[in-house]
Amino acid sequence: MTNRLSAADVCALLEKLRESTPLVQCLTNTVVTNFTANVLLAIGATPAMTDIPTEAGLLAEIASATLVNVGTPHAEQRIAMIEAAQAAHHKGGPWVLDPVAVGALPVRTALARELLKYSPTVIRGNASEIKALAGFGAGGRGVDTVDSAEGALDAATHLAHTHGSTVAISGATDLVTDGTDVLRISNGHRYLTLVTGGGCALGAVTAAFLAVGEDQLAATASATAVYTIAAELAAVNAHGPGTFAIAFIDALAAIDAAEIQSRVKIA
Amino acid sequence: MTNRLSAADVCALLEKLRESTPLVQCLTNTVVTNFTANVLLAIGATPAMTDIPTEAGLLAEIASATLVNVGTPHAEQRIAMIEAAQAAHHKGGPWVLDPVAVGALPVRTALARELLKYSPTVIRGNASEIKALAGFGAGGRGVDTVDSAEGALDAATHLAHTHGSTVAISGATDLVTDGTDVLRISNGHRYLTLVTGGGCALGAVTAAFLAVGEDQLAATASATAVYTIAAELAAVNAHGPGTFAIAFIDALAAIDAAEIQSRVKIA
Amino acid sequence: MTNRLSAADVCALLEKLRESTPLVQCLTNTVVTNFTANVLLAIGATPAMTDIPTEAGLLAEIASATLVNVGTPHAEQRIAMIEAAQAAHHKGGPWVLDPVAVGALPVRTALARELLKYSPTVIRGNASEIKALAGFGAGGRGVDTVDSAEGALDAATHLAHTHGSTVAISGATDLVTDGTDVLRISNGHRYLTLVTGGGCALGAVTAAFLAVGEDQLAATASATAVYTIAAELAAVNAHGPGTFAIAFIDALAAIDAAEIQSRVKIA
Repeated sequence: MTNRLSAADVCALLEKLRESTPLVQCLTNTVVTNFTANVLLAIGATPAMTDIPTEAGLLAEIASATLVNVGTPHAEQRIAMIEAAQAAHHKGGPWVLDPVAVGALPVRTALARELLKYSPTVIRGNASEIKALAGFGAGGRGVDTVDSAEGALDAATHLAHTHGSTVAISGATDLVTDGTDVLRISNGHRYLTLVTGGGCALGAVTAAFLAVGEDQLAATASATAVYTIAAELAAVNAHGPGTFAIAFIDALAAIDAAEIQSRVKIA
Repeated sequence: MTNRLSAADVCALLEKLRESTPLVQCLTNTVVTNFTANVLLAIGATPAMTDIPTEAGLLAEIASATLVNVGTPHAEQRIAMIEAAQAAHHKGGPWVLDPVAVGALPVRTALARELLKYSPTVIRGNASEIKALAGFGAGGRGVDTVDSAEGALDAATHLAHTHGSTVAISGATDLVTDGTDVLRISNGHRYLTLVTGGGCALGAVTAAFLAVGEDQLAATASATAVYTIAAELAAVNAHGPGTFAIAFIDALAAIDAAEIQSRVKIA
Repeated sequence: MTNRLSAADVCALLEKLRESTPLVQCLTNTVVTNFTANVLLAIGATPAMTDIPTEAGLLAEIASATLVNVGTPHAEQRIAMIEAAQAAHHKGGPWVLDPVAVGALPVRTALARELLKYSPTVIRGNASEIKALAGFGAGGRGVDTVDSAEGALDAATHLAHTHGSTVAISGATDLVTDGTDVLRISNGHRYLTLVTGGGCALGAVTAAFLAVGEDQLAATASATAVYTIAAELAAVNAHGPGTFAIAFIDALAAIDAAEIQSRVKIA
């Protein structure tokens, strides 16, 4: 563990999340809405998936945190996303940008650049997406990544400095940086890459942790740690990605301080 | 049990549903389409999720019952919802309105008010939503409720008298009223509140029961009873909300008269 | 087995699919996006569910194969579907058309007729849909079918000759024809009809097999065989459609040559 974040800090944040049941607004892609909402309920948050113009901005004002995931950005949702990001930024509330497949595809790339104007609290993506968003690479071939997390650290640092954001890069080891410090979380299981929304739902959980934690870097790393430790616990009795995804929801609901203390690997 | 509805009546309606496999049209939110369709298949109905203009009205004419759930009411879907409600009302077929987060958010509130013109057979929501729809309160903070079911009974009675609807209010004890009689169903399990669409899919099951039952109050209460007893059965071997949701689908498919007879609590 | 396709051929194609992890673009209905993506991940492909105008055509150029499923064809998605089919056709890449509820509903019927101009590599549907698409019948009452697969063979042969497509008709026995040869696959389990997207996701798996197999008829029959054998394996320990759907994802990820060799029934 590090000076910035102890296992006890992670446990305390999770405890605070479960006690306060933050309302997390999600404007996300059509593939993962259901899984994302169930992940939020399991961890102890209340999901609200409102993503239409007029309502999205109003909900962002009420919500404890907002997620904007550009995975399937239909025209109406794009307007709602700008609204929500603007409202979250204006009130000083936390919001997370997940730049799915940015770089590879033009509509979402332009949208993500526009969204950056509202200074996302956290940007969470894979290495290809983070590099493309920073203008450091051409992007991957969609949701999978062709770059290593470590190789996107320069791009992440650049994004952090330019937009005042904390940046999380998913990979075998997840990196989280605020542009100064870098935390590396080495928990997780490969099954998580075989469940659609495995990354997207972490964006929502990160938003939930930001709702209860003032230190952005610590909250983001805590979300990643709890999420990926739950994946390890779920994998123990899973027979494949189907049973894993179900056990993962159970694990998020049941995970306790002892399991976090014994398994967490943050450096 | 009551004069209006015996356990045997509930079992007879379920039997009739399974024999006739009613076609249930669902215009519902993007978060719960998959779960709703699987719930309908499990209980013995055939789902059809057609929600685009032109087709929605045509399908409402063919369908045995229609559900309109305003959880994520995109512009195109709003037009389709009006079409479907109008067609169902015109042919005298049963349709259910689920006013998700009405009161809290303006677009769906205006939409739900417009939909009321077509006299929904059943209105199903939580206490906050029922109060807001009746003009008795400001609404909750989204899908969760801050009011008790019993506290929304006046609002429900008002809606029932004004629109000729049966009104179902979900809560620890579910209330169903036609404006004169009130039935209280005390089955269920808290896990149902931890699965997204736990309430929304009950709207679809209610539509399926309305397709086979002439007494609106009895059909609505029967749907609630079967659904919440299945939740009790599913909870027995569940390890959390993930395994619960899966066991719940199995329980809906397997639930029999003996289980209903022994567990049902309607007063 | 037949001269056209041995059990060893099926296994070799699956092996090739798993080694090459083809990128499969899906423009599909809102009910089954999540299940379809998880099925693709389980079988060894990479899903990309991009379905907005501008991006859909670009992704079709990159993707190894494309699925167009017209189950909930919103206006924006209809434009994207034409774009993707056109791009796939132009580059000579494989694409699958799933004409959900064509015949019964007018918007998707017109859309499917338009899509036929781009010569789908495979057309996959139930008997009612295949007959309606060929102009041989009025269509079913939505996603379920009122016709037998064998009864749609003439319609399938007509479509195959007119559009140069291989046609797959789902049923208790699945038929696949290129207009000359007919393969019949008799694997499967009735639980697959109780899971929403059971048919739709096979369209995506068919696209994945087309990405690695040059013989369209063999690739389509192989996809059907692997998919329906996985259903048999999943049914062994399932307690209902809920546990079945989860076990099915596990079975797709785990299915091996020995299981295929011992169970496959292609004639």
